[in-house]
Amino acid sequence: MNTPVGQLYIVSAPSGAGKSSLLNALRGRVQGLVVSVSTTTRQPRPGEQDGVHYHFTTAEIFRQQVAGGDFLEYAQVFDNYYGTSRLSVNALLASGKDVILEIDWQGAQQVRERAGNAISIFILPPSVDALRERLCGRGQDSEETIQRRMRDAQSEMSHYAEYDYIVINDAFESALEELACIFRSERLKLVRQQQHHKALLDALVG
Amino acid sequence: MNTPVGQLYIVSAPSGAGKSSLLNALRGRVQGLVVSVSTTTRQPRPGEQDGVHYHFTTAEIFRQQVAGGDFLEYAQVFDNYYGTSRLSVNALLASGKDVILEIDWQGAQQVRERAGNAISIFILPPSVDALRERLCGRGQDSEETIQRRMRDAQSEMSHYAEYDYIVINDAFESALEELACIFRSERLKLVRQQQHHKALLDALVG
Repeated sequence: MNTPVGQLYIVSAPSGAGKSSLLNALRGRVQGLVVSVSTTTRQPRPGEQDGVHYHFTTAEIFRQQVAGGDFLEYAQVFDNYYGTSRLSVNALLASGKDVILEIDWQGAQQVRERAGNAISIFILPPSVDALRERLCGRGQDSEETIQRRMRDAQSEMSHYAEYDYIVINDAFESALEELACIFRSERLKLVRQQQHHKALLDALVG
Repeated sequence: MNTPVGQLYIVSAPSGAGKSSLLNALRGRVQGLVVSVSTTTRQPRPGEQDGVHYHFTTAEIFRQQVAGGDFLEYAQVFDNYYGTSRLSVNALLASGKDVILEIDWQGAQQVRERAGNAISIFILPPSVDALRERLCGRGQDSEETIQRRMRDAQSEMSHYAEYDYIVINDAFESALEELACIFRSERLKLVRQQQHHKALLDALVG
């Protein structure tokens, strides 16, 4: 019998929306869910482990893989490359896991082009004031820095309408529950239930 | 500002799958959800209230309404008509409620033709044995009666693949939670969030 395959998800959000905290908590809430580990050419920082925080590689290998179409999405940020390996995502999906790509709207557009069936979720803050407060951090940053972060956040948020689902992170626990519901309900869709319960369905229909 | 409109749902299941108990419990679990009241020409039974258990009407009026295209779906069962009034469903949807039609596969096919955007859910028992047990009732029925019920159930179940979502009622509480997740996650879809949070979305995008 074939193992049922997992579903590919994209989760995007502006800085300050609480995406990372939500996704960390989500993995404890929903079984069979993994967040994809990105590949990067930047140097590991103290404490970062290869294969856990990032797959670390060289610029030469990265560029070869780009040329070979090995990335579902990638971007160059200053002197470093960041990307999502198609092979490592496909291996996780083939093992039956649902895979989350934690990427921005530009990465999301590339994935939609290169992997047709991704389900995408955008996480938003509950108000402009709440966003500004979260972006102020510990109050040690200049007004200019904060305004730049707000502009970056607004630029990211201007793409929310390209996503299938919108979660507003007003209260952490209810946003977490909403996210969990999306993943659970997608598993109840006909095609996925036909994969997971083939023997039962055949027996019931007689 | 316009009131956001609700979503139309179809829920079908064979007898013995636990549909009615699940839908009763679901209304306590998810806010803003109503189960549509059918219209019928049969006589009220003791204790049945007009507008609560059914909308009771005459065969003459029913036939006029069928001719006028007033039903989303209808059927004749022996000498009686049963149907779902388009007007009463539309009024509920316009008030922002999600509306559930508790109908069989034949009604579901009619509704899909006449109301394009219905989301449909099929509830199944966890095994053939569990179904037979539930259809045996209190053990007072003949083997022939039970076999007829099994054939009817299988005939209904043979249409499960026409539905968007499949819920398997193995443990009541987890099937209830799965159903609740479907209704909650559908409200997180882009178009519905745009209706419900228009002011926030406009403010965030700036």
